[in-house]
Amino acid sequence: MKGLLAWWEGRCVSSKLLRFVDFNLRGVGQVMFQDNPLSGLLFFIGVGWGSYAAGMPQVAIGGMVAIVAATLTAQWLRVEAAELGAGLFGYNAYLVGLALGTFVTVSPIWWAYVALGGVVSVPATLGTARVFKTWGVAALTAPFVLTAWLFLLATYAFSAIGGGGLPMATSIVPVDPAAANPLAFGAFVQGVFTSIAQVFLKASILAALLLLAGLAVNSIAAAAFALAGAVVAVVTAHLLGAESDLITGGLMGFSPVLTAIALGAVFHKPGGRVAAYALMGTVLTVVVQGAMNVALAPFGIPTLTGPFVLASWLFLLPGQKVGQD
Amino acid sequence: MKGLLAWWEGRCVSSKLLRFVDFNLRGVGQVMFQDNPLSGLLFFIGVGWGSYAAGMPQVAIGGMVAIVAATLTAQWLRVEAAELGAGLFGYNAYLVGLALGTFVTVSPIWWAYVALGGVVSVPATLGTARVFKTWGVAALTAPFVLTAWLFLLATYAFSAIGGGGLPMATSIVPVDPAAANPLAFGAFVQGVFTSIAQVFLKASILAALLLLAGLAVNSIAAAAFALAGAVVAVVTAHLLGAESDLITGGLMGFSPVLTAIALGAVFHKPGGRVAAYALMGTVLTVVVQGAMNVALAPFGIPTLTGPFVLASWLFLLPGQKVGQD
Amino acid sequence: MKGLLAWWEGRCVSSKLLRFVDFNLRGVGQVMFQDNPLSGLLFFIGVGWGSYAAGMPQVAIGGMVAIVAATLTAQWLRVEAAELGAGLFGYNAYLVGLALGTFVTVSPIWWAYVALGGVVSVPATLGTARVFKTWGVAALTAPFVLTAWLFLLATYAFSAIGGGGLPMATSIVPVDPAAANPLAFGAFVQGVFTSIAQVFLKASILAALLLLAGLAVNSIAAAAFALAGAVVAVVTAHLLGAESDLITGGLMGFSPVLTAIALGAVFHKPGGRVAAYALMGTVLTVVVQGAMNVALAPFGIPTLTGPFVLASWLFLLPGQKVGQD
Repeated sequence: MKGLLAWWEGRCVSSKLLRFVDFNLRGVGQVMFQDNPLSGLLFFIGVGWGSYAAGMPQVAIGGMVAIVAATLTAQWLRVEAAELGAGLFGYNAYLVGLALGTFVTVSPIWWAYVALGGVVSVPATLGTARVFKTWGVAALTAPFVLTAWLFLLATYAFSAIGGGGLPMATSIVPVDPAAANPLAFGAFVQGVFTSIAQVFLKASILAALLLLAGLAVNSIAAAAFALAGAVVAVVTAHLLGAESDLITGGLMGFSPVLTAIALGAVFHKPGGRVAAYALMGTVLTVVVQGAMNVALAPFGIPTLTGPFVLASWLFLLPGQKVGQD
Repeated sequence: MKGLLAWWEGRCVSSKLLRFVDFNLRGVGQVMFQDNPLSGLLFFIGVGWGSYAAGMPQVAIGGMVAIVAATLTAQWLRVEAAELGAGLFGYNAYLVGLALGTFVTVSPIWWAYVALGGVVSVPATLGTARVFKTWGVAALTAPFVLTAWLFLLATYAFSAIGGGGLPMATSIVPVDPAAANPLAFGAFVQGVFTSIAQVFLKASILAALLLLAGLAVNSIAAAAFALAGAVVAVVTAHLLGAESDLITGGLMGFSPVLTAIALGAVFHKPGGRVAAYALMGTVLTVVVQGAMNVALAPFGIPTLTGPFVLASWLFLLPGQKVGQD
Repeated sequence: MKGLLAWWEGRCVSSKLLRFVDFNLRGVGQVMFQDNPLSGLLFFIGVGWGSYAAGMPQVAIGGMVAIVAATLTAQWLRVEAAELGAGLFGYNAYLVGLALGTFVTVSPIWWAYVALGGVVSVPATLGTARVFKTWGVAALTAPFVLTAWLFLLATYAFSAIGGGGLPMATSIVPVDPAAANPLAFGAFVQGVFTSIAQVFLKASILAALLLLAGLAVNSIAAAAFALAGAVVAVVTAHLLGAESDLITGGLMGFSPVLTAIALGAVFHKPGGRVAAYALMGTVLTVVVQGAMNVALAPFGIPTLTGPFVLASWLFLLPGQKVGQD
């Protein structure tokens, strides 16, 4: 692996184009916190496969359009080279593109809309990072969530932009208990893997395996926490009586997966106390996912990774040195 | 009084269990800003009485479960001893427990849900306090409001957690003028006292008297501002034409009571100019209570002390030395 | 012009009353970032004319009541003389008064409500400015938006305060494509000018010309960016398929106009790169205007300049030195 990465780095040094590709691959990798072009490539293939399998190539294409627009914007804005090189201006844009590919109908103006979303994600990332740096905390995917929420809400106001994939706005009523069925083993396993794939808005098990591989090539701990987070999320959501369809489709678990990786393997050094802290945060994220599903129902937009951002900020802003003995 | 507190402190020094009780009593006291176990005890008795009188012992019990969970969590997280000792990790949890006792149906999983709410209130408190310390302002009850809103919203998403006590989500329409009746003297007095009791989600006049006593044993000024704040709130809400049932039930006044204490007796030294500033803040809090009642109607959750937090932050963030001559 | 201003400054030095008038005129000027009493006077006349022409003198009167209340409050709070003298405690109050004049029915208690809005805008301004100073960013009109949203939402809760001019709360549905007509040249020109006038909640072309004159006497660049921002907004909104009535009435363009002035001529030194950055921000503001129109539909309140604040903060918080070569 190291040889492969060294070879790639050698190519990039001598080619501006390959370096640009490297920025974008690392950007894709940073969706799950991995500053590694190989992780990014595996994620990229997973998303491509998931999009193709779902008959929605525009999702993968939207991601590419937005991340390229963002990287160019970041270069034009002369952001710090180290941050650009680590992919920190790509992951939010990539997710914006996936979201606009998933929920917005393709049309000639769709391309400009996706590119604009990628462009806007750059100041959003710079600004959020600067504000939260005050307390030593990362922007996480908040710039993605904010940008995509705005661009999705706006589809209702603009007749040239159709939000064909969006849920219908509804008023809030308690979930029907009949929708919470016992989870058989097959559904449980499916829920665990789709929870991982839904981090990239996909529901494919093969995509989930490619994502896990992408994590593992850079960080075994990250892969382990992703898997454990998915298991915890599916179990917790089931115990609380969430809709089985949501659980099995991975829609209760993708934010908890990110929380588990963030709290367990990225912002703290893995260990017993840290695992306990990550567990609390992961369980909380399931509750927040339920809460935000409810809160956004009247607005006709999905939570995206909002529950991950909110719950993880809650657990990171204290700045406690959780892992020390 | 001082002898009694000294005797209690002596007991606590020699007993880890009593010290733990002391943390929790001070936590209850901090709901109204009093770092005093006797204040906490009187508040605790007031809440107990109010819960019993309303036939809802689960409210007082929920408060206890959550505050104990929070104090244990804070110890596990090794928070600063001085802050733990002042009850600063208890008051938000206690309120979370009261709210989940009031609005969520008791069931086997309710106990775990309440305890989780208490646990989560600790990072929420640490994080909010750390952010607002940047401008020298306290977290107030924001960690409670945030945690409880999430846990109450989530009841709509989870069939194993029933939000039996929650209002139904409704769309926004102007209040019926017929609901704003002239306030007779009896209703006025009742509204004043229930405004104080509703700080702890109770509507009992006896509870209000116990709360006033709890304030007075530690700070006569705090008790005076609580009472004055309640009077100002009831009068203002009535002049603006709020629903009489809300006023008489204390639901327009509990946030203004907290604002009056905070701005008049806690974060500024009491005096003429400070009283005028507290008066402005208290009147604003009534307007914010109206606004938030409206804004939350589509979500089917109560404002809790959100109006207090928002209005008091607005009046504290300026950092003006209001009281100086 | 300079002689006129020097003469006026001479008058103000010797008269406390005229100095008070000067504070308020500069406050009106600061709505469009101009610390210049003549700009303020021209804006003031424009608003007066627009209110008179619309048969709603209470709008201009509300603005006056609120700004006087705010200036008195700021003096009582002993704010910094330089900031008071630059009109920084007036512009939010003036806008609050215009908004409460536009959307709230006049009644005896309306006067007190408007004055209270002006009073509250002062701590809101102090607090917001203090928080955002942490990152070197201005409060913009956020204090106005926050205060007015609260006071407008509250009209639904208080029967003595009638929100007669507010839109009805509705659930969210996609805009009817039939509402997006081709924009003829006349409608285009009208939309450009009303976009400028709606910064002060007016729809009059003559008012827009007075506003442009008020900008030009202090800053030609500001006037140019206002006009260019309006053109960009009308074109963008039309391309995206916004409702033609909203575009022609200036309701898609007033926030983008402010963003264009702020990013192009106030917080950066005008130039080619800065103009490009301002263009991105202006286009984004149109999207945000659409998004916030949707998000606020269930609450029955208008966006006010919320889209300007959100989009401009997004583009200012990065703190990038955009204009440097």
